[in-house]
Amino acid sequence: MPLPINRRWLLAQRPAGLPDDGTFRLAESPAAPPEEGQVLLRTLWLSVDPYMRGRLRDVPSYAPAVGLGETMVGGVVAEVLESRAVGFQPGDIVEGALGWQIHPTLTVLGTGPGSAGAEGQEVALRKVDPTLASVSTALGVLGMPGMTAYFGLTEVGQPAAGETVAVSAAAGAVGALVGQIARLLGCRVVGIAGSEAKCAYLREELGFDAVIDHSVPDLDAALAAACPDGVDVYFDNVGGPLLDAVLRHINLRARIVICGMIAEANLAAPDLAPRPTRHLLVKRARMQGMIIYDWQDRFPQGIAQLAAWIRSGQLRYREDVLTGFETLPQAFLRLFSGENFGKQLVKVV
Amino acid sequence: MPLPINRRWLLAQRPAGLPDDGTFRLAESPAAPPEEGQVLLRTLWLSVDPYMRGRLRDVPSYAPAVGLGETMVGGVVAEVLESRAVGFQPGDIVEGALGWQIHPTLTVLGTGPGSAGAEGQEVALRKVDPTLASVSTALGVLGMPGMTAYFGLTEVGQPAAGETVAVSAAAGAVGALVGQIARLLGCRVVGIAGSEAKCAYLREELGFDAVIDHSVPDLDAALAAACPDGVDVYFDNVGGPLLDAVLRHINLRARIVICGMIAEANLAAPDLAPRPTRHLLVKRARMQGMIIYDWQDRFPQGIAQLAAWIRSGQLRYREDVLTGFETLPQAFLRLFSGENFGKQLVKVV
Repeated sequence: MPLPINRRWLLAQRPAGLPDDGTFRLAESPAAPPEEGQVLLRTLWLSVDPYMRGRLRDVPSYAPAVGLGETMVGGVVAEVLESRAVGFQPGDIVEGALGWQIHPTLTVLGTGPGSAGAEGQEVALRKVDPTLASVSTALGVLGMPGMTAYFGLTEVGQPAAGETVAVSAAAGAVGALVGQIARLLGCRVVGIAGSEAKCAYLREELGFDAVIDHSVPDLDAALAAACPDGVDVYFDNVGGPLLDAVLRHINLRARIVICGMIAEANLAAPDLAPRPTRHLLVKRARMQGMIIYDWQDRFPQGIAQLAAWIRSGQLRYREDVLTGFETLPQAFLRLFSGENFGKQLVKVV
Repeated sequence: MPLPINRRWLLAQRPAGLPDDGTFRLAESPAAPPEEGQVLLRTLWLSVDPYMRGRLRDVPSYAPAVGLGETMVGGVVAEVLESRAVGFQPGDIVEGALGWQIHPTLTVLGTGPGSAGAEGQEVALRKVDPTLASVSTALGVLGMPGMTAYFGLTEVGQPAAGETVAVSAAAGAVGALVGQIARLLGCRVVGIAGSEAKCAYLREELGFDAVIDHSVPDLDAALAAACPDGVDVYFDNVGGPLLDAVLRHINLRARIVICGMIAEANLAAPDLAPRPTRHLLVKRARMQGMIIYDWQDRFPQGIAQLAAWIRSGQLRYREDVLTGFETLPQAFLRLFSGENFGKQLVKVV
């Protein structure tokens, strides 16, 4: 088989605020022939996720920054074209942190979920069962965002039946699942989203009990109306002034899951706000950060549960797909403008 | 017995910032003769505590505000002068939320620890065992501050042996106990206090592993030097910029106990700061507010443990005593200037 051309998106420069046309650049080179222990892949689906903004920043965090000139990191679903790795056959569908490239050649590190790898490195590959659902779900409901929703809500948020669970970016990849899972657990669910269309979808198609368009002029009044009994669990994907507002409505012993802060992702300097500590003290409330990789060992359990709910029709998901490898930066930017409606993916033609 | 004169400190006006000479005023009236179910008391010791600043503020909180013209709330140790309540005899020493008055006549509600009461109301009275330690300790190490340190550290902070525990206001009534208890649990203890004398006391007399004077010009450098392995548990009595700084040094899965925020107590408007959420997310850390009344049922267990450590010489405490009922407002203000060194008390002559 002639070797295909590997196209890659590299980090060209670190953005100060919102990423722009200069942030990434395309590069191409012949794909490397697989050596012993390696596979050559063909990328089918690529994921863009809010966490990626953090990787563009060269500051200490829970994962290293992407280096300038390096392939951008990201989750990918791919088909095995050639394999010299035990347990992988041509035609297998795999998911892993393969980065923004269409024909990676990588050393298989293991078959567990996702330690990151980009060019020429070792990477963990998870085999995807194409009979379970569209293989693209390995990047969404049956992948990292689904696991984030499931373990973040149940293990950090710990909602009890009858409690009010509020979730921000509620029409997003994680938020829509958080709300539906909370409903399945017997909670009253309030979704906060960025457009009327998203709010209508949450209420009418996903059965959320109440919704708030976060652009309303009086957020406090909207929160009071949507959460007449206060907020017991707030699953926060947004941060910023919306978090400040929800804090004014929390109940005794509330739990605030800090999962994301997309409202603050592109700020050049941190936003200033009143400290949350008075609310936490008066309400004996808890605010806790989560990173899904801490539950990596339990992904099979989480995937089995979400797949069962999908099969029984109790859990729905929505994908927002751009087509073509070259659309990746554009797809990424949709996360920050709020244009994406559901899990943002890029499908390679 | 002729009825004594009851002197009381009333709330005269709500302070906008630091309380001042106009905040409280003295009133006197003959003590009321006890009716059925009531006791007439003679106040021996009064406690001033940071939480009292919150009670001067007429905003919703975990406890109601003191009304204008009402007796200021507070914990008191008193002797029973006359009793028409079952189980109380003249000469008994009791502790309760009796408020700032020297001869209260109160209906005994129960013998558990402290639901609040001021003038003519019902109050829970706890009998104090004068053989255990000075009866003044019922307002300190064997009272609310001691219980706050013990349950707040062990139940909210949950330190493990070998971890680094940092505590602010470390020479205060709660902080000095937190640090010593953490040492008894096998932790490395770093105290943050407001003067060289306090720091020397913590290091030399209480055995803290490291101390930081919070007025050092470079708090980050001081924290890095004092906590070379980072901070696993931060027991915060201070809030403000010190909290912001400690957040920059927390470890993975750190626990931040929000117990007090005396640095912010007298601000007319909330101080603005970067949100703590990025630190909490990256470090998967937890920030949790606590109010000691949530552990009221377990006070006997906590008191027994601290009394045992005092008897064995493993736990030391320090009282800072002003003499004379008229010194109460002055004693209260010492909490905010940091002048108090140990548990601030007022002894009635």
